[in-house]
Amino acid sequence: MDDELRVRNHQTPMSFQPLPGFRDFYPDDCALRNYVFGKWRDAARRYGFREYDGPPLEPLELYTVKSGDEIVGQLYNFTDKGKRAVSLRPELTPTFARMVGARQRDYKKPMKWFAIPQLFRYERQQRGRLREHFQFNADIVGEKDVAADAELVALLVDLLRSFGLTHEDFVVRVSDRRVWSGFLRGLGIAEEQHPAVFGIVDKIERDEPMVTQKKFDALGVSAGAASAILKFADTGTFEKEAPAEMATLQRFFDLMAHKGLGDFLKFDPKIVRGLAYYTGIVFEAFDKKGELRAIAGGGRYDNLLQLISGVDMPALGFGMGDVVLCELLKERNLLPKLENRLDAYVVIAKEELRPQALKLVRELREAGLACDYPLIGAKVGKQFEAASAGGAKFAVVIGDEWAQGQATVKTLATREENKVEVARLVERLKQG
Amino acid sequence: MDDELRVRNHQTPMSFQPLPGFRDFYPDDCALRNYVFGKWRDAARRYGFREYDGPPLEPLELYTVKSGDEIVGQLYNFTDKGKRAVSLRPELTPTFARMVGARQRDYKKPMKWFAIPQLFRYERQQRGRLREHFQFNADIVGEKDVAADAELVALLVDLLRSFGLTHEDFVVRVSDRRVWSGFLRGLGIAEEQHPAVFGIVDKIERDEPMVTQKKFDALGVSAGAASAILKFADTGTFEKEAPAEMATLQRFFDLMAHKGLGDFLKFDPKIVRGLAYYTGIVFEAFDKKGELRAIAGGGRYDNLLQLISGVDMPALGFGMGDVVLCELLKERNLLPKLENRLDAYVVIAKEELRPQALKLVRELREAGLACDYPLIGAKVGKQFEAASAGGAKFAVVIGDEWAQGQATVKTLATREENKVEVARLVERLKQG
Repeated sequence: MDDELRVRNHQTPMSFQPLPGFRDFYPDDCALRNYVFGKWRDAARRYGFREYDGPPLEPLELYTVKSGDEIVGQLYNFTDKGKRAVSLRPELTPTFARMVGARQRDYKKPMKWFAIPQLFRYERQQRGRLREHFQFNADIVGEKDVAADAELVALLVDLLRSFGLTHEDFVVRVSDRRVWSGFLRGLGIAEEQHPAVFGIVDKIERDEPMVTQKKFDALGVSAGAASAILKFADTGTFEKEAPAEMATLQRFFDLMAHKGLGDFLKFDPKIVRGLAYYTGIVFEAFDKKGELRAIAGGGRYDNLLQLISGVDMPALGFGMGDVVLCELLKERNLLPKLENRLDAYVVIAKEELRPQALKLVRELREAGLACDYPLIGAKVGKQFEAASAGGAKFAVVIGDEWAQGQATVKTLATREENKVEVARLVERLKQG
Repeated sequence: MDDELRVRNHQTPMSFQPLPGFRDFYPDDCALRNYVFGKWRDAARRYGFREYDGPPLEPLELYTVKSGDEIVGQLYNFTDKGKRAVSLRPELTPTFARMVGARQRDYKKPMKWFAIPQLFRYERQQRGRLREHFQFNADIVGEKDVAADAELVALLVDLLRSFGLTHEDFVVRVSDRRVWSGFLRGLGIAEEQHPAVFGIVDKIERDEPMVTQKKFDALGVSAGAASAILKFADTGTFEKEAPAEMATLQRFFDLMAHKGLGDFLKFDPKIVRGLAYYTGIVFEAFDKKGELRAIAGGGRYDNLLQLISGVDMPALGFGMGDVVLCELLKERNLLPKLENRLDAYVVIAKEELRPQALKLVRELREAGLACDYPLIGAKVGKQFEAASAGGAKFAVVIGDEWAQGQATVKTLATREENKVEVARLVERLKQG
């Protein structure tokens, strides 16, 4: 491979590729990306979330303080020319916590903010696994009541619905670490062990039962307790009385029902989320066929702001990546047909009228119309080809009729033609 | 400093800052950024340019092949975990050339593409000098006629005009390296020395006259020739006959006049652009007061695609950064007033109506309205405060009148109040 590359490079000195795991966005790809971003932004706007962003490069410590040094193996980190340890952002939450901590006094609570950062992880290359993706992030700060959790999950549901997905396509699986903790305390498992238990539960669906069993053994969880945990994870039912924390989770489900979104949810204790910092309700959205990785995930993290910024405020959030979402939309045939659509292509049928045509083109553009024309003289047939290729709705032909103050407007889809006074062209083209 | 940091860290463990030269975009900043991007996108759309993007991280060689190894001192470059020499992108043109070279066969010529990348340079820290910025990039590929140059510069002018700037605010200074080369040949200066002469001319305005003189001496340019060069740079007039290449540049100015944009241009031979790869018309936009750095700059680079991608096609482009542009808009008082504007804030005057209010909120959002409400019970006065803080146009009060199927709609600016049938609320609020 290397040799082959060298040979090829010898002939055409440079033959560059993007780095593995990084995407080029050609115009069609970029149009799809803008479509997704547009839907995300519109749903967030309707929910009263405000957009923010942070730098794609941050001090490395911003990530290690939250996730420990193990995370460094997955980062695009390096030492900059000022000897600072820095990293491309693998997630936005630490940046968000830093920004909120620095200026939260300037904002009314609850703060409802969203962002669409590009994120970077040096992951082992697998088919379909990228090293960058765009991720919609929404967070609420300053409200500890589950009403905030319901508001956030409602946004998640309506985001997905805005792409045409229905409750037949996806489900949001919801659990609550407080319920789990209440349940584990009931089994006599000490608080310090709960994170380790969450770590085991988080992997239940991927691990072989024997592996799970061994993990419980290693943690010193009795066979009886392990069996109760597995049963709870699987069925969501309690052998004994439900822990008191269940009432809060129930209120969350009630609020979602009031919003008319109960159909999109499922209580599923197997969802605990891998990260250590979640403190309450956690959730993940999945396609109902279960063929794809999680579409989105998040939860409440009431202690993280304190850790990152020293400001003690409750907070919760979720992320939704563009890659899995687009896989799902593609599979459900919900990707939009995005065309390069010009409003008008000005055909210069008489080259001596080019100065007039240039002036007209600029007037059409000035009026807000997307407009193109041949940069150099070309046969009329060629010009019509260019009009079609550009997806133009109308061709505006500048020819003999110009002497009478007219141009011919041709609707390309129907081939209908009309002579239009030049002074009324904008009006005619805007009628569509 | 390090000790101080350690002490502070001991008290509030984490007190992070963004890296020097990197910006946080709080909601107001992000709204301004979106405003600028929106204007850029709209002008590009009207001109028939299509958006694309590449990765923010690229192989280091993509930059060194074009700009030489000296550029590395200004890059955020490092070795990734796969031992690849990589760099954050300092400019988009090499990525553009790579992408075009790989797939130009799929696109009709001329290709008109634009992008809004974030770019990164490790520059020495100065006041107002950032290490990242966003830059609008527009390029045309596949047309060698100056008609393409005129199309590109017209876009540049209309981009700036779309922000409310006029020919009293900015000027595009235009020159042509081919004219320069013709002129230099007439002075008997060999082709190989032209790049070095351009390097000297590019710095004329910043260097002391003595320094310029010494540079000409060092290059072996005679005193007579140096004096002619300086006179041409300064006045744009020729002592002898104008070189033949002047006719092409004249045609460019004629085309711009046909477009009605002659007022925005000035022939100025001092503009040659620093980079080695320009081959024809070059241009820079400046504020007329001359207080700011260049707002935008670009030119024709007919050989670069060949160098980067092995595909021989004429091309030209320009870049416009967000930082200088926003400084100019601020100075001219052209920054828009961007408000966090909710369409409606639902005031829950009777807490027992919360379930109904939640359903209503979702219906309003579903209808496209930006809508918020109190997550938990609060006094009506507090709720109105939140409505004002959110910039809501209307407060929709859910109270006693709900029993009659009505809500009170209050226009916050005028304090006008009306009872509206719940079934007609969306219609009423959409009337604005």
